[in-house]
Amino acid sequence: MLTPDILLINGLVLPEPGISKVIEPGYVAVRNGRIAALGPMAELAAPQGREVIDARGGVILPGLINGHCHAAMTLFRGLADDLPLLTWLHDHIFPAEVRLVNPEMVYWCSRLAAAEMLLSGTTCVADGYFCMEAAARAFADCGLRAVAAQGVIDFPAPGVPDPADNIKAAARFLDDWLDRDPLVSPAVFAHSPYTCSARTLRAAKDLARGREIPLFIHVAETREEKALIKDALGASPVKHLDALGILDERTVCIHCVWVDEEDLAILARRGAGIVICPQSHLKLASGTAPLRGMLAGGLQVALGTDGPASNNGLDLFREMDVCAKVQKVRDLDPVAVRAGEVLAMATGMGAGVLGLAGQCGVLREGALADLIVVDRQRPHLQPFHGPDLLVYSARGSDVRTVLVGGRPVVRDGCLLTMDPAETMVRVRRMAETLGRQNP
Amino acid sequence: MLTPDILLINGLVLPEPGISKVIEPGYVAVRNGRIAALGPMAELAAPQGREVIDARGGVILPGLINGHCHAAMTLFRGLADDLPLLTWLHDHIFPAEVRLVNPEMVYWCSRLAAAEMLLSGTTCVADGYFCMEAAARAFADCGLRAVAAQGVIDFPAPGVPDPADNIKAAARFLDDWLDRDPLVSPAVFAHSPYTCSARTLRAAKDLARGREIPLFIHVAETREEKALIKDALGASPVKHLDALGILDERTVCIHCVWVDEEDLAILARRGAGIVICPQSHLKLASGTAPLRGMLAGGLQVALGTDGPASNNGLDLFREMDVCAKVQKVRDLDPVAVRAGEVLAMATGMGAGVLGLAGQCGVLREGALADLIVVDRQRPHLQPFHGPDLLVYSARGSDVRTVLVGGRPVVRDGCLLTMDPAETMVRVRRMAETLGRQNP
Repeated sequence: MLTPDILLINGLVLPEPGISKVIEPGYVAVRNGRIAALGPMAELAAPQGREVIDARGGVILPGLINGHCHAAMTLFRGLADDLPLLTWLHDHIFPAEVRLVNPEMVYWCSRLAAAEMLLSGTTCVADGYFCMEAAARAFADCGLRAVAAQGVIDFPAPGVPDPADNIKAAARFLDDWLDRDPLVSPAVFAHSPYTCSARTLRAAKDLARGREIPLFIHVAETREEKALIKDALGASPVKHLDALGILDERTVCIHCVWVDEEDLAILARRGAGIVICPQSHLKLASGTAPLRGMLAGGLQVALGTDGPASNNGLDLFREMDVCAKVQKVRDLDPVAVRAGEVLAMATGMGAGVLGLAGQCGVLREGALADLIVVDRQRPHLQPFHGPDLLVYSARGSDVRTVLVGGRPVVRDGCLLTMDPAETMVRVRRMAETLGRQNP
Repeated sequence: MLTPDILLINGLVLPEPGISKVIEPGYVAVRNGRIAALGPMAELAAPQGREVIDARGGVILPGLINGHCHAAMTLFRGLADDLPLLTWLHDHIFPAEVRLVNPEMVYWCSRLAAAEMLLSGTTCVADGYFCMEAAARAFADCGLRAVAAQGVIDFPAPGVPDPADNIKAAARFLDDWLDRDPLVSPAVFAHSPYTCSARTLRAAKDLARGREIPLFIHVAETREEKALIKDALGASPVKHLDALGILDERTVCIHCVWVDEEDLAILARRGAGIVICPQSHLKLASGTAPLRGMLAGGLQVALGTDGPASNNGLDLFREMDVCAKVQKVRDLDPVAVRAGEVLAMATGMGAGVLGLAGQCGVLREGALADLIVVDRQRPHLQPFHGPDLLVYSARGSDVRTVLVGGRPVVRDGCLLTMDPAETMVRVRRMAETLGRQNP
């Protein structure tokens, strides 16, 4: 083995969370931004590397993958909680967005989100919003891998005052970012079947198809949406999208709370991916997605936090925990979804949904060196009977070390690529213009 | 004001979480273990104290109150997850308990739990287990306030091999601990209506009544329990307890997942308290307690983590978050339970359930100085639109400072009263005898 750039030693290595056995104690060697080798410590001839990181018994696993976010909405986190969805949207979020969303806001608020995600062990996010040029810059500047999807909606939107230009704006974003930065893959985010016409949806998919990139879309999030589409178009949201011909292996359907077996069979047949956002589904009282049925049907399902205004956090450890637990009560079955399945959703399976299968979400020779180290020497992680504790007991704050593309981004729980203090001050100043909504 | 022992300054002070307005910036003065004064910084003539703690804008609030725990079960955390309840209990937990539960195990494993609780902002726990003498010593040694309840069950139990001695053993524990340590209040924990005979339940209540202390009991946790009691006794679990005459202001009913409106009316009439454990209810697939109905009926409801083997953690911030969210989906109503109500459950209302109303769970002149400081200078807590973020965004790891009875127990996120490393080693060694159950 050539001398690695970074050698992580003395870890409990989880090469494919939820699937493979652990290697303990194990090492991971990183070279040129990729995994060069991994294995048991006993097989490591000479523990040499330009830099050696001693995991001290911590868990070394692939960085977590956030399948759905609106990062810039950190500005609105906690602005208006515990409200009916329409009151929340129409009286609080939409008016605040109209007033405040612009490239500068998107840049700084996405930076704040990037800091939160990196510090809690997320190394890749699929983000969808407007002014995505600014978000993409923020992610790249912070060292966070991103699938950055420009929003398309049939309403005036930040940066796209005339909806007639929405596809053109998305095309411009794709042209700007395809092959621009190894960390950022551009994509298209069609908002939903109830805010995009059939024509817009088809055009968005054509655009994505032409460039072989993913199309993201919110689908079947609420009962109301399902009823609305049924009334207007005589079909379920999934069937509507299928009839438009926009479901394929590069279509990612977000939410899918109100889908039935026929919908799932269609998604499986088309090879479409799914992202569920369990905490957002709880907080907005949308419901609980039929995850057991999705997994049993062979569907690829990723885990997303959704935007920080409907969660209100971006910690995927918390999301994994809630995901596994809430399914058990949905089905009144403690075996409904196992911790290992949720770990796979947040790593390898999540990568597959985003079109990054084998690239990240896995520790394997040749894969990108996106990985994290979770400290186990903490009272709430002892004794450590097995990796299930990563789901039911670990928290984002247990992450000590984060590498993205082989670059150390977090060390000893501190960000190396940015100063969070400056970003917090900038975002706080913007928030002050919103005024206090809570006591 | 006499010179305080400790003066906390520059905080966002929440005297009664979920009820009172915030004081910002504010101070809290502590003297002789109690709150001596609090108010806006502007009213603080001279910022003097034997010790001054600058909260640097952090939130100062009462320490959180864990209404139900089996602390010593840290040993079994993650030992056997994602299993049906009876398999979990009979094949894993009960055999492990028979082999391993003894005073030494209870002492060290309760210490580990105390470390986790204090580090995550819990200043008072209601704990129920066996060999409670050892648990009480562990809590007192670590500086954690506790209502320590000796278990009573009609089966051979650790420390009580002959169930005929169960009441006697509880009486001995009460005699030993009444007025022994200002941090520990002894109590009785009758396991449940399905593991204790009518005679045992009455005797346990008589014992508690005689000493004017609380009786805790698991009630209506699962559908199966409800059906079992109904078949055997022709009544709901709550009605059964009521018929036995054991429900009063000093009876605390834990779980209450499967209660109907009549049950809640009975509990309200008797003035009994309730503790719900939302994450345990999810993880064991028990269901979701009808919290909205409880609060609307004027019942006092505390929040508990349950034991770490069925959660798997003791962080009440996480518990608050899940509690508020899961209720919204239970009722498909985003307003079902507000963040402020859950904050009250984990502080002032929780204290009321444990018989400590006005003593803790509130920052008020004369109350015990059990308080915590939550750092807000973290990416996931910015911008801070209001205290709802304590529920939906904060984590136990955001707690920087903890005082119990005026004694600094945690400073800068580090425990002052014990060395967690030694405790982790001791518990890990015990765990090694259990063998690995997970891959």
